[in-house]
Amino acid sequence: MSGNTFGTTLRITTFGESHGDALGVVIDGLESGFSIDMDHLFRQMQRRRPGGNPLGTKRQEPDAIEIVSGIFQGKTTGTPIAIIIRNTNQRSGDYDDISKLYRPGHADHTWQQKFGIRDWRGGGRSSGRETAARLAAGAIAMQVLSQKGIDIQAYAIQIGTVVAEARDYSIIGTNRVSAPDAAAAIQMEELIEKVREDNDSVGGIIECRITGLPAGLGEPVFDKVEALLGHAILSIGATKGIEFGDGFSVASRLGSENNDQMDSNGFLSNHAGGMNGGITNGDTLLFRTAVKPTASIGRPQKTIDIGGNEQTIVVEGRHDPCICVRIIPVVEAMAAITLLSLWYEQYGR
Amino acid sequence: MSGNTFGTTLRITTFGESHGDALGVVIDGLESGFSIDMDHLFRQMQRRRPGGNPLGTKRQEPDAIEIVSGIFQGKTTGTPIAIIIRNTNQRSGDYDDISKLYRPGHADHTWQQKFGIRDWRGGGRSSGRETAARLAAGAIAMQVLSQKGIDIQAYAIQIGTVVAEARDYSIIGTNRVSAPDAAAAIQMEELIEKVREDNDSVGGIIECRITGLPAGLGEPVFDKVEALLGHAILSIGATKGIEFGDGFSVASRLGSENNDQMDSNGFLSNHAGGMNGGITNGDTLLFRTAVKPTASIGRPQKTIDIGGNEQTIVVEGRHDPCICVRIIPVVEAMAAITLLSLWYEQYGR
Amino acid sequence: MSGNTFGTTLRITTFGESHGDALGVVIDGLESGFSIDMDHLFRQMQRRRPGGNPLGTKRQEPDAIEIVSGIFQGKTTGTPIAIIIRNTNQRSGDYDDISKLYRPGHADHTWQQKFGIRDWRGGGRSSGRETAARLAAGAIAMQVLSQKGIDIQAYAIQIGTVVAEARDYSIIGTNRVSAPDAAAAIQMEELIEKVREDNDSVGGIIECRITGLPAGLGEPVFDKVEALLGHAILSIGATKGIEFGDGFSVASRLGSENNDQMDSNGFLSNHAGGMNGGITNGDTLLFRTAVKPTASIGRPQKTIDIGGNEQTIVVEGRHDPCICVRIIPVVEAMAAITLLSLWYEQYGR
Amino acid sequence: MSGNTFGTTLRITTFGESHGDALGVVIDGLESGFSIDMDHLFRQMQRRRPGGNPLGTKRQEPDAIEIVSGIFQGKTTGTPIAIIIRNTNQRSGDYDDISKLYRPGHADHTWQQKFGIRDWRGGGRSSGRETAARLAAGAIAMQVLSQKGIDIQAYAIQIGTVVAEARDYSIIGTNRVSAPDAAAAIQMEELIEKVREDNDSVGGIIECRITGLPAGLGEPVFDKVEALLGHAILSIGATKGIEFGDGFSVASRLGSENNDQMDSNGFLSNHAGGMNGGITNGDTLLFRTAVKPTASIGRPQKTIDIGGNEQTIVVEGRHDPCICVRIIPVVEAMAAITLLSLWYEQYGR
Repeated sequence: MSGNTFGTTLRITTFGESHGDALGVVIDGLESGFSIDMDHLFRQMQRRRPGGNPLGTKRQEPDAIEIVSGIFQGKTTGTPIAIIIRNTNQRSGDYDDISKLYRPGHADHTWQQKFGIRDWRGGGRSSGRETAARLAAGAIAMQVLSQKGIDIQAYAIQIGTVVAEARDYSIIGTNRVSAPDAAAAIQMEELIEKVREDNDSVGGIIECRITGLPAGLGEPVFDKVEALLGHAILSIGATKGIEFGDGFSVASRLGSENNDQMDSNGFLSNHAGGMNGGITNGDTLLFRTAVKPTASIGRPQKTIDIGGNEQTIVVEGRHDPCICVRIIPVVEAMAAITLLSLWYEQYGR
Repeated sequence: MSGNTFGTTLRITTFGESHGDALGVVIDGLESGFSIDMDHLFRQMQRRRPGGNPLGTKRQEPDAIEIVSGIFQGKTTGTPIAIIIRNTNQRSGDYDDISKLYRPGHADHTWQQKFGIRDWRGGGRSSGRETAARLAAGAIAMQVLSQKGIDIQAYAIQIGTVVAEARDYSIIGTNRVSAPDAAAAIQMEELIEKVREDNDSVGGIIECRITGLPAGLGEPVFDKVEALLGHAILSIGATKGIEFGDGFSVASRLGSENNDQMDSNGFLSNHAGGMNGGITNGDTLLFRTAVKPTASIGRPQKTIDIGGNEQTIVVEGRHDPCICVRIIPVVEAMAAITLLSLWYEQYGR
Repeated sequence: MSGNTFGTTLRITTFGESHGDALGVVIDGLESGFSIDMDHLFRQMQRRRPGGNPLGTKRQEPDAIEIVSGIFQGKTTGTPIAIIIRNTNQRSGDYDDISKLYRPGHADHTWQQKFGIRDWRGGGRSSGRETAARLAAGAIAMQVLSQKGIDIQAYAIQIGTVVAEARDYSIIGTNRVSAPDAAAAIQMEELIEKVREDNDSVGGIIECRITGLPAGLGEPVFDKVEALLGHAILSIGATKGIEFGDGFSVASRLGSENNDQMDSNGFLSNHAGGMNGGITNGDTLLFRTAVKPTASIGRPQKTIDIGGNEQTIVVEGRHDPCICVRIIPVVEAMAAITLLSLWYEQYGR
Repeated sequence: MSGNTFGTTLRITTFGESHGDALGVVIDGLESGFSIDMDHLFRQMQRRRPGGNPLGTKRQEPDAIEIVSGIFQGKTTGTPIAIIIRNTNQRSGDYDDISKLYRPGHADHTWQQKFGIRDWRGGGRSSGRETAARLAAGAIAMQVLSQKGIDIQAYAIQIGTVVAEARDYSIIGTNRVSAPDAAAAIQMEELIEKVREDNDSVGGIIECRITGLPAGLGEPVFDKVEALLGHAILSIGATKGIEFGDGFSVASRLGSENNDQMDSNGFLSNHAGGMNGGITNGDTLLFRTAVKPTASIGRPQKTIDIGGNEQTIVVEGRHDPCICVRIIPVVEAMAAITLLSLWYEQYGR
């Protein structure tokens, strides 16, 4: 029951439920003397927040954040940075009907089994809203990494059956699905609108690309860079897999095709995704994660209630037809926290 | 530099290099009063060891294991169990030529960058041989889980382009690639022999199936069951991805297709792979991991030496054309350690 | 820089500076279904807070606490409990003069050396005010332990040269120094008033007595019960030592005097203080901790400024002449967190 | 049950029982490229080992150590260093009589309560012999610290009622009790011989002095330098307390006496023992620990057996009349591990 802390030399501890008083995060181990860019922090929060994107849920949550410790005269002091995000606009009433029903695809059933009690308002702590706290911490980690020349960018490469073929990173911010392919972005948006009308939802794939990393990050044998990124990304609700570099496609490859050979200018290819033996190799780090369709759908589904009786449920409320889009900045955030922790481990603060 | 411990309530710490004096593991947190089945332990070791499988490397390493602590009168005492595996039959001479060359696809380059020094004999600690220690610990964890009614079975579902369509779990032990499909197994074996003749190698996909789990294992929000399994499996060298349940294919699914509905008999499907909200749901836990082709191949490849000069390398020595097959028991081992740790966390020892 | 989390199965993470916006604590790993007694929690906070005791500082800080997560319908849910304590009545102006001076006996100099920056308002995070967060967490841990039959009581046995000879636990709450000796308590109070008039301060010794513990708590070899209690208590600012049972006096004892012999009714003595081999033995656990005189005194002292120049300093402001008294509930709190964590480790939640 | 790992950036994991096959330690996180001085390592082992000192037990245990990993071409590689110490000369027969009796002052009773099973041969893992593994790890940490200009020296300042008044550090190695006072050393030796003849034992106090530390080590608020040293030292069996600087005597001091004032040459006194606010201040770090009389004595004592029946026990075998002397190098070892871990935390490796 104590899995709410992540990281080693840099550690975040999050708290809060979807419809409780507040969410928040304590960041411990950040270097002292760093000036946080509050504008960047707010922009990152905006990307995830409900209502921040017309394709997403219609809920409006301002996600106003308050930093209550760890900063003095505009700089980090090396003490814990605590960030509080008040919950507002909670319409718990939306959830009253389902307080005794297990929503398919949700954590209702398993949390009840594990804890014997659950805060059923909006999913409580199992809600995606929990990631707002990670996002705040991750935005700060991204800023620190950026100052070290490391850039992290995540984007959608698949929504439902629509696949982005192009990789035009400059346009990611210009479409509402954060896709690097203008034509695909339009189709993706259309698909999301369609499934919304159908009271259904759809999944997707997020790719994340990290440039500027030095060779040498990662702590074998158990805390390899891909193991820690795997831990980080798979701890985001709704993710169902992660792969690095060429990922699952390496299964059908020959070693002579898959090895990244080198010459004096560096690697001749990057099938590995920027790592060897669990340590970054200085090339671009690349991974992808699969996101399932939003579990909350406005269609009748079979389920049971808390007493084990069979029921039919229609999940009312304002839900995202494609949660994948809002997870994109969370992927960046978790990657940033993981890599900054590894950086401190290797180079000190 | 301190990433050689894995787990929380159950913790393993491994040590040792491929061609050093010994490998080993310290298991801390195992329940007291448990009788270890040494026969089962030896059989698991045999599945991974070089020369244990005619398809693998021709090296012969007996992997004789010695338990030097934590057992009294045949039972665990609750104190650390240390296991030592002596290295024998090391032909370091095989590696002399390449002490100053970075083998493509290997950790040579990154470990040199990170540590400024590396034991180049057989890859040192970055060698797959390191997993022998995990395997010993995992075999014991499997025995404890088995007594609780939990069974873990991993098997190959793809080798190169050959895909196992059938799932006949009873035949896994009867073919040399541990495949659940008799016809595919023959093709897989043929493919492996062919790439060996070509001085090449080939990748594969391992599936792991865990039955008998109770609902309630997993520690959200960061130590979700898939996050910890991701950490565990991706810490095995050569793995390039992991997915749970329907995995990456959920990207193209609708919520109405992907949600696992329930009736009073339980779940009507298992797209999720036995977990919801990061906690086991009582259904079969299912995941897959991609394994890259063995990096060591007997073909000329471009690389650089430790001084940055361009070189051509042919990796001599006795190598596995398909490391995937030998990783299968390691996947079981790491899954067992992860789940037993979560079990202790939830239910105590 | 990441030492702000304490505990294993039960973990607290604290944050906040003396004169920042807020202090707080995140409690992770507490059992679900527990009803927190808010009255008890407030009473414990009251014991430590400035102005809560006429012998202490004249500062008034209400220490109003807000629980923002982890509680649903009056019960713990097994998710993190975050508690926020807003700072009010901060007169940072009191500290302006000394922003560039290192106060003798304080952390000003060392924090500046370590972090290169420090929040000098009231000592920032090195202030004793930080313990308010520990106290809130500890009060909850005490309540849970109490339900298991375990009672923790700390009290002053020495203030300056005044030593409590009696051990009348029933009167501890009736005097302002929390002493178990009525006559000594009067002398202690008089001494404190005298040193206050002298613009000086005085130290003391706190004893802590824990009854109702089962045999079996403690995790050798490194996490012995005394090792963890030592870690916990010595992490409280101003403590300079800890001893268990007969403590330092065992140095001059013979083994035949010091061993606690047993008969069928239990131990015939308790020189060990309730533990053997790092594990509780079922007898009363007893330890003492030494608390130094408050470092802030209104007398001229030699020091240097941030530039290394020699200066004379008189620490103005409202300070406790005997910080020992206010540390008493903090000792209880840290002991409670330590023992509840060990309880969960041994028996599960 | 998983308390066998200590440290954070530098971590040691120990294993082994007194009369099992072997003891050992895995050191994880040590810097790469360091050349271990094997002569120094053996000398440190010699100081603790039974039979190494004519005043100690008559048992002869060579404590031959074997480093099986983490070293290549004479240098550390940054991978775990595993050290194995084989047990020899075990006369388990000495313990047969007491396999069902709880020896007073020993861990027999508590380990049985905790684990439900115990290796009663020589105390199993609760034996002081366990510290041989810590000593090996600590000797290496001392060497690394020494290269950074940090020197650690522990010595006896009290044995029974004999107190060392002088502090002549140069003579510590010249007497058999490692005392810094030649006259007291003679009396201490005589006292130990006398209690041996009486089949009794005696306690003592060890002081530890660390010079060359920079200001800045320690990780408030929970991992203060005294908190971590407290954890480390109190995890050594038989220690009953620890104090820093002036320790318990500060209780009767005034703030004006106790504060360490500064001028431009540094501190004018060192009552604090080299730390402020949980961080080293650059002055000499000083602490003392109390060691109880050896629990094993050849005199009749009351106890119970495993069935709860009253018995009389005389502990036969070859025991140290004053375990304090052999603990001295263990105190140095644990201090070294703690401080090197804090060094890495602050400055990187």
